[in-house]
Amino acid sequence: MVLQGSHCLGGGLEGGKGEPFTAFDPISGQALPPTYHDADAGQVDRAGELAAAAAAAFAATAPSQRAALLRIIAEGLEALGDELNRRITQETALPAARATAERGRTMLQLRQFADLIEDGSWVDARIDRGDPQRTPLPRPDLRRMLVPLGPVAVFGASNFPLAYSVAGGDTASALAAGCPVVVKAHPAHPGTSELVGRVVATAVQRLGLPAGTFAMLHGRGNAVGERLVAHPGIAAVGFTGSHNGGRALFDLAARRPSPIPVFAEMGSTNPVLVLPRALAARAASIAAKVAESSLLAAGQFCTSPGLLLCIDGPGADLLRQELAARLTAACAAPTVHGSIRAGFERALAEVATLPVTAASAAAGTSTAATAVCPTLLQTAARSLLLHPRLRTEIYGPAVMLVVCRDAAELLQVASVLPGNLTATVHGDGDDFVLHPAVLDALRRCCGRLIANGVPTGVEVTPAMVHGGPYPASTDARFSAVGTTSIQRWARPACWQDWPAELLPVELRDDNPRRLRRLVDGRPE
Amino acid sequence: MVLQGSHCLGGGLEGGKGEPFTAFDPISGQALPPTYHDADAGQVDRAGELAAAAAAAFAATAPSQRAALLRIIAEGLEALGDELNRRITQETALPAARATAERGRTMLQLRQFADLIEDGSWVDARIDRGDPQRTPLPRPDLRRMLVPLGPVAVFGASNFPLAYSVAGGDTASALAAGCPVVVKAHPAHPGTSELVGRVVATAVQRLGLPAGTFAMLHGRGNAVGERLVAHPGIAAVGFTGSHNGGRALFDLAARRPSPIPVFAEMGSTNPVLVLPRALAARAASIAAKVAESSLLAAGQFCTSPGLLLCIDGPGADLLRQELAARLTAACAAPTVHGSIRAGFERALAEVATLPVTAASAAAGTSTAATAVCPTLLQTAARSLLLHPRLRTEIYGPAVMLVVCRDAAELLQVASVLPGNLTATVHGDGDDFVLHPAVLDALRRCCGRLIANGVPTGVEVTPAMVHGGPYPASTDARFSAVGTTSIQRWARPACWQDWPAELLPVELRDDNPRRLRRLVDGRPE
Repeated sequence: MVLQGSHCLGGGLEGGKGEPFTAFDPISGQALPPTYHDADAGQVDRAGELAAAAAAAFAATAPSQRAALLRIIAEGLEALGDELNRRITQETALPAARATAERGRTMLQLRQFADLIEDGSWVDARIDRGDPQRTPLPRPDLRRMLVPLGPVAVFGASNFPLAYSVAGGDTASALAAGCPVVVKAHPAHPGTSELVGRVVATAVQRLGLPAGTFAMLHGRGNAVGERLVAHPGIAAVGFTGSHNGGRALFDLAARRPSPIPVFAEMGSTNPVLVLPRALAARAASIAAKVAESSLLAAGQFCTSPGLLLCIDGPGADLLRQELAARLTAACAAPTVHGSIRAGFERALAEVATLPVTAASAAAGTSTAATAVCPTLLQTAARSLLLHPRLRTEIYGPAVMLVVCRDAAELLQVASVLPGNLTATVHGDGDDFVLHPAVLDALRRCCGRLIANGVPTGVEVTPAMVHGGPYPASTDARFSAVGTTSIQRWARPACWQDWPAELLPVELRDDNPRRLRRLVDGRPE
Repeated sequence: MVLQGSHCLGGGLEGGKGEPFTAFDPISGQALPPTYHDADAGQVDRAGELAAAAAAAFAATAPSQRAALLRIIAEGLEALGDELNRRITQETALPAARATAERGRTMLQLRQFADLIEDGSWVDARIDRGDPQRTPLPRPDLRRMLVPLGPVAVFGASNFPLAYSVAGGDTASALAAGCPVVVKAHPAHPGTSELVGRVVATAVQRLGLPAGTFAMLHGRGNAVGERLVAHPGIAAVGFTGSHNGGRALFDLAARRPSPIPVFAEMGSTNPVLVLPRALAARAASIAAKVAESSLLAAGQFCTSPGLLLCIDGPGADLLRQELAARLTAACAAPTVHGSIRAGFERALAEVATLPVTAASAAAGTSTAATAVCPTLLQTAARSLLLHPRLRTEIYGPAVMLVVCRDAAELLQVASVLPGNLTATVHGDGDDFVLHPAVLDALRRCCGRLIANGVPTGVEVTPAMVHGGPYPASTDARFSAVGTTSIQRWARPACWQDWPAELLPVELRDDNPRRLRRLVDGRPE
């Protein structure tokens, strides 16, 4: 497929009408052809209008048809072959093995949602049978299920060029739910986005779905995304990225004449707590695991461990030494984009004005234009308690170590942590039962609580929770990963005394799709 | 129980420290003792802090303990006997039979949530079993369930002094979920609120629950509620009332440093559509039903039918005549508060500047200080299409009749309707199958679609949906009525490889509570 600098709009391909930009090779810093152009205001509005016009027809498609769409997209990703991996590697400097693995995950997600909607029980159908004899008034027949919210604006993520971008988890779950999707492609990987966007657009066309079912727009700055979120045709927003970006979209959506829900997953520090017996028994191996997890993809994971907590005691020095050795011995590594390096360095400069010691790998171990140096930071618990900046995310390969004086100080620290995607606890023997208050504080600040593991590695399964209290996400009531993430794009609707033959098939008495339903509050 | 002008705070009763106010008898316009005082800033802050301090302990209570709390509150409401009915009638002018019925509904809601959490399956537990042999990495064991969000601020409604006030649906569902509650009592019925608040506070005390589990604050203006919603201890908001009030709280919550979800149920026009065969066959009886529904409680229901649509043809004149006769023959009726009469009259004055004809009962048929005159409004479809004000709610006993020229014009009207709680269709024979596009447009604009009925009368059952696209509510993904309303106050949490003996009982392998769970994506 020859890259043309295309947007996907109205069922066809077209160039952008705004300012030009290109991708950059993060290693060489060289521009990568072709030239892309931002969508202009008219193109954004057209995408919103077409999506709104397609919403009713797409919502009315059979689940089997949407499942076919998702599976054809998965096949299309596979058919892109090495071309896709090469472009991902060029645009993001992520290793080829990662590109392959991420494609596998993206295809898995698409197929999981296909299976989910073919099974159909996710619509949470409930029937309360009527009673014409009830006094003083008859009891009506009520039937309720989840229905699609309407067009979803999806923002591609820089750090997941496939799995959280054009045909990633947000798009797959929104299409599965029956919502048209307008993707704002991430400007760090427009070529990858074009390849994938054309696969999705072709699949939509092949199935004869409405032209507004899918669109993809490029835009280097904020204007395209902002206009899209403000468009009256858009009904919900999915975003994975920085706190500043997610919060700006959330604020914009909340200020609309008709506000819409925004699910922004904005990362976190992902605290890792080492309890005393584990610290004494295996400080070096825990440090090695945390270092390895924090260095993955140059720290460009929302779940990268950025805060390591323990109580002073046997093993604390070893933990620090081993962590320092691992991090400072690691090579500086390229990030996806120069703006990520700039953000990382700005964050380090911010914490350097506070009582923090820092040690990093010798600069210059990578010649990449976007390279960042893995860094160990250390601060005292009282400083972390005093300075909120020390408990917020530094996106990139940095770990902040905090050795607390005693269990009471550790509890103080755990109690002030902001919302996180994950929290991890290392413990041996009676470690867990001896620290219930700290564990409870950690549990309350996060979406996923992990024992004796690392936070990176997010399984795509029904029980996964990838979200958490603000600022990890803008709505802790939902997950961005796993099959429950479809719930972000649906709302309940209820039919009262509706003619039986006109009810959605999911709510008919004979339950032809054999869904798990509640009838009069009990499983059928 | 002698009314003392009490707030409930910190497990005890105390007077407010702000400005004084009283309830008013809507009939006589006379002040009703005792004098209440607004909570001052310190009292609001204390309520927020105590609720936050109680959150972990209350979340950790057994469902059986919270069920006991809800049942003791229900018993306490019953034990208030005639005293409660008398005060409701005095403060709101609602008839005694309504007070009795609403108490029954409130007790039913409390007991339904008690049953729901004792059953326990609402937590939507999911277990994905691990696989240590998986390559390249072992698959972790993941266990997920819903956990409480934290303290909920509940705003009492003027029109439901019991069922959507101090111990109403929002409070019952939040306490059931394990969330402490701070109620902002509605200033139209402070005495009713005090009676109920003291019942709840006594129940909390009797069970030895943390003092911050429940608080109730009075406040005549907006200051108390605004400070409460902005308080960092508050994690979510439940509101039933006007669009202006709900939107103001939503905006405030969205602007917080850490935004919180607001479920505001703000009412709607609840369109009623009469299709041609039904119009020809039973225009008079439909008009009578709609008139009766719109006159209930002087139109003070969120689900009051405010917009009646049909296509010109046989029966249209009869529909209009019968509706006019019923509405203008009805007595002017007292509303709960002078501000509601003022709002109704202001709304009528607004639409009077537009191409609308109005007919109402002779003024003066009620001497009540807060009385409003039932009013029939009529406008042309083209005016409704042109003037958004004509498709938004007039809170009170007014019905806007729109006779469309033909089916195409009806579809145009249906397509521009804003979000509604309900939409109702009257049809006979092939009416339903002949108008799929109109019915689809109606379905998409509402939470509950009703055939051949009236929108008033909201069943409290698992399949009920009371919510809908904005401006009916601020989050269409949830319902304010029925057992699913508990989902507003919960978020998913996930435990990864967590020690089995420390897992919540809901997630243990042996499933001692026999919950319906998904294991590896399938029912257990």
